Amino acid sequence: LNGKDAAVSFLREQSRFVITTHVFPDGDGLGSALALSLALEAMGKQCRVYCRDGVPDVYEFLPHSEKVLKKTPPADGAALVLLDCNKPERAAIEAEDFDSTAVIDHHETESDFGQVRWIEPRVPATGIMVYHALKALGAAITKDIATNLYAAIAVDTGTFRFSNTDPDSLRVAAELTEAGAEPGYISENLYQTWSENRFKLLCMNMGSLDVKGSVSLTTVTAEMFELTNTHIYDTENFVNFPLLMKDVKVSVFLRETEKNIWKVSLRSKGDINVAKLAERFHGGGHKNAAGCRVRGDLVTVRGKVLGAIRELYGL
Amino acid sequence: LNGKDAAVSFLREQSRFVITTHVFPDGDGLGSALALSLALEAMGKQCRVYCRDGVPDVYEFLPHSEKVLKKTPPADGAALVLLDCNKPERAAIEAEDFDSTAVIDHHETESDFGQVRWIEPRVPATGIMVYHALKALGAAITKDIATNLYAAIAVDTGTFRFSNTDPDSLRVAAELTEAGAEPGYISENLYQTWSENRFKLLCMNMGSLDVKGSVSLTTVTAEMFELTNTHIYDTENFVNFPLLMKDVKVSVFLRETEKNIWKVSLRSKGDINVAKLAERFHGGGHKNAAGCRVRGDLVTVRGKVLGAIRELYGL
Repeated sequence: LNGKDAAVSFLREQSRFVITTHVFPDGDGLGSALALSLALEAMGKQCRVYCRDGVPDVYEFLPHSEKVLKKTPPADGAALVLLDCNKPERAAIEAEDFDSTAVIDHHETESDFGQVRWIEPRVPATGIMVYHALKALGAAITKDIATNLYAAIAVDTGTFRFSNTDPDSLRVAAELTEAGAEPGYISENLYQTWSENRFKLLCMNMGSLDVKGSVSLTTVTAEMFELTNTHIYDTENFVNFPLLMKDVKVSVFLRETEKNIWKVSLRSKGDINVAKLAERFHGGGHKNAAGCRVRGDLVTVRGKVLGAIRELYGL
Repeated sequence: LNGKDAAVSFLREQSRFVITTHVFPDGDGLGSALALSLALEAMGKQCRVYCRDGVPDVYEFLPHSEKVLKKTPPADGAALVLLDCNKPERAAIEAEDFDSTAVIDHHETESDFGQVRWIEPRVPATGIMVYHALKALGAAITKDIATNLYAAIAVDTGTFRFSNTDPDSLRVAAELTEAGAEPGYISENLYQTWSENRFKLLCMNMGSLDVKGSVSLTTVTAEMFELTNTHIYDTENFVNFPLLMKDVKVSVFLRETEKNIWKVSLRSKGDINVAKLAERFHGGGHKNAAGCRVRGDLVTVRGKVLGAIRELYGL
């Protein structure tokens, strides 16, 4: 069964759920899972929310985030709902334990998993789909549900800055704000909760800036991690800062994860497809956001990446 | 006459307009003025758009920005519309030359100027008021009008991140996106058009970071301006970066405008009122954003500001 109506019927008919989202969860996956569970519980159903990696610090402000279990709950006859991904492996869940399964996701299809599948790759966030499902179910949108869904949408549209922002995402955000979501509070929690050490790492990272024509390179070395007592996940979003520059079309961000192993994040503007660049190095991603791993010392890795950029895009 | 209906009648009845906004214009003033002029012209009326300071580089992408005149147009029997300010002096215009005058603004009242006055301090952006006026006039919202108004709203709500964001601003943004505004294109033009030198200045500025408890201090010296060939206006927004840190409640940003004269920008989170701090040094502003000038060498100025922060807020 495919589509929204099938998903809504599934949610209406089942009474016990395990709701899960992908590992390394983001605000869209977690906010969607929490909102869905809160609404279903208010309808008298039972829900357990599972995410292998739990809730990263930055998302702890999501209402009822303490509900998220890090241990796979036993299936125990419940129905499985996979959110913001469409392959059970992405959520580290044993899908065969479940008799009834549904997928609600806005990513390109990676598998044909799910007795019920509602997949809309053009929708900017899974949170938008969950909102429409809840409306169809007649669920009341409480302040806590609204906050979870607004955060989900904000994360996946860059608070309505990305080119995926469409009229419906803004209209849903308006309705969520009416239902009690506070855009200022949510944005402060999403964007202004860095540790001092993380900010110092950003300062060091920006000190490494090198601009070659329309390509920027920035680096975090193992030494910088050590000096600031930070970790790889503290570098989230660093790759986007050089894009502030008008003439920078590709931002390359290198992190030393182990001696001579570099995690490379790539971002681009407009039509430059950095997924192709990542594929050269056995990585992957989307047109404007991709990544890969490259071995070698820093000078060699920079040379390899810049060489590939020259070849692929003539930059 | 007061309120929306009076303003709409004024726009409907008059046939020739001078539309103006405040000096040092921002996206809300310029976008509102351009959108209003385009809509009135499509209705067969004549409009001249005036702003003493013209259009800053960052706003040149606004459709028809080349319409903005830097020289006061002669009144010549036209009606005056003052946008995004409510005192003619703020727009550097000789209001006595005009027989008919109207004000459309979302700031607190500074004067009782205007035969017709529509002032709504609770509305996040003048662009929202102009949108509602155009709908009431039955004007067609073209892609160019929608782009100008979306940009206006985006600037004054920080693309829906500030606490002033309300359901209506999001709903209007949805309708503007439906009418052809492209959120991704507009955000790229607003936020990703820095010069390389400006970004290098930011990197240097961040290198100066000093965190004292919940207060951050960053500095741009005359030497940094010289090394990067940049100017005071290139430092716009720098003061906000340290607020990324969770524990930073007050961000102090010092710039050396002349030998031993420092322009101090202040930003705060939550209830800390930095306007009070600015007043200590004969400056001013709003609760969370204020500024002042302080004389002395860097060490002395830092000491004075930190001392006042300790006294006022106990931080």
